[in-house]
Amino acid sequence: MASNPHVTALHDLPASEAKWVNLQKATYIDAKGNERVWEVASRKTRGKAGIDAVAMGNIIYHPSKPPSTIVVLQFRPPIDAITVEWPAGLVDADESPEEAAVRELKEETGYDGKVISVSPTVAADPGMTSANMKLVMMEVHLKEGEPEPEQHLDEGENIQRVTIPLAELYERLNEFASKDRYCIAAKLYHWAVGVQFARDHPHLFEKLSQPGAST
Amino acid sequence: MASNPHVTALHDLPASEAKWVNLQKATYIDAKGNERVWEVASRKTRGKAGIDAVAMGNIIYHPSKPPSTIVVLQFRPPIDAITVEWPAGLVDADESPEEAAVRELKEETGYDGKVISVSPTVAADPGMTSANMKLVMMEVHLKEGEPEPEQHLDEGENIQRVTIPLAELYERLNEFASKDRYCIAAKLYHWAVGVQFARDHPHLFEKLSQPGAST
Repeated sequence: MASNPHVTALHDLPASEAKWVNLQKATYIDAKGNERVWEVASRKTRGKAGIDAVAMGNIIYHPSKPPSTIVVLQFRPPIDAITVEWPAGLVDADESPEEAAVRELKEETGYDGKVISVSPTVAADPGMTSANMKLVMMEVHLKEGEPEPEQHLDEGENIQRVTIPLAELYERLNEFASKDRYCIAAKLYHWAVGVQFARDHPHLFEKLSQPGAST
Repeated sequence: MASNPHVTALHDLPASEAKWVNLQKATYIDAKGNERVWEVASRKTRGKAGIDAVAMGNIIYHPSKPPSTIVVLQFRPPIDAITVEWPAGLVDADESPEEAAVRELKEETGYDGKVISVSPTVAADPGMTSANMKLVMMEVHLKEGEPEPEQHLDEGENIQRVTIPLAELYERLNEFASKDRYCIAAKLYHWAVGVQFARDHPHLFEKLSQPGAST
């Protein structure tokens, strides 16, 4: 990156002046019937799909290279560090999650991807925020010799692409995590840990045949 | 649960009156040297470890039952729904992440767990919040006939435990996700998707032997 991005100041922000993020107090009735309160951060940008964001779990196929995934590196002011994440973005007001996934993958990586599956709506960090998202698994099929496409970034965005063979993802994320000022996004990290755990401990996931069952 | 927990009201909250969550404006220098601003929600409770929270990816071993994991169900006011998550909690001011993991697993599930590995610090939702966490993998070894232990919940906590065989985790999470007012936490879901993807597509993760390499 051209310079060394960094946070220079943090100031309290009244929720009424914020454009993107809200801070609210929720009053709720708990499971025992008592009234309680909870503090909630939320996004102000949620559109008609009711989904704040999509992340694109992508698999890149190439005739002569190992199956890979593209992660993106970008400076994230909330943590004053460079994150390693799957491409992701907010769902626009009139978009479906699938449309947002195709658009954002193209913007951040330049690639045209095909949606393979869309997850249920899951909660990003439900003890603190209302933010939700869908994991959209996508495939990109490349041809031999195809040049790396241009990104289509918004003004002010600076996103670096890194293509990582799937077989190396877990160790490469740990290498990034050990570097100064880099931080892995929790969701991508959990996916990579799940993959690695299943590969290291396949016996833990075997379905036991049930005596008398017809299958 | 005894009653049907639900949010009754949401009101804007000045950051100065909030006890747990802060809303701030970060001023930062971007990668091109330009000054910009970003809105950030953060936790006010971070202690000396510098880690907001731990989640306990737990594996339950039992002499005559399949390898399983315990997930917890609880009403989460930020999303006005019941989440399915791995046990998790905030790291206390003077605690290490490992200590918090052992304590919180005991409180939420009643079980004594052994820490197997601790992840790097990862970012919960870095486009919006500074919140970070560590994934602590833990093992619990049960004996035949051992009764389910008591939980040690804080006042006001109502947390239901569900033990799920690892081989069924992905399909059971999808079943929960299809139920009204249930929502899966993104991090657990990503781990389960990673496991399932690695089991469904083992060939994508095979390391290619390199011609001439000594290994």
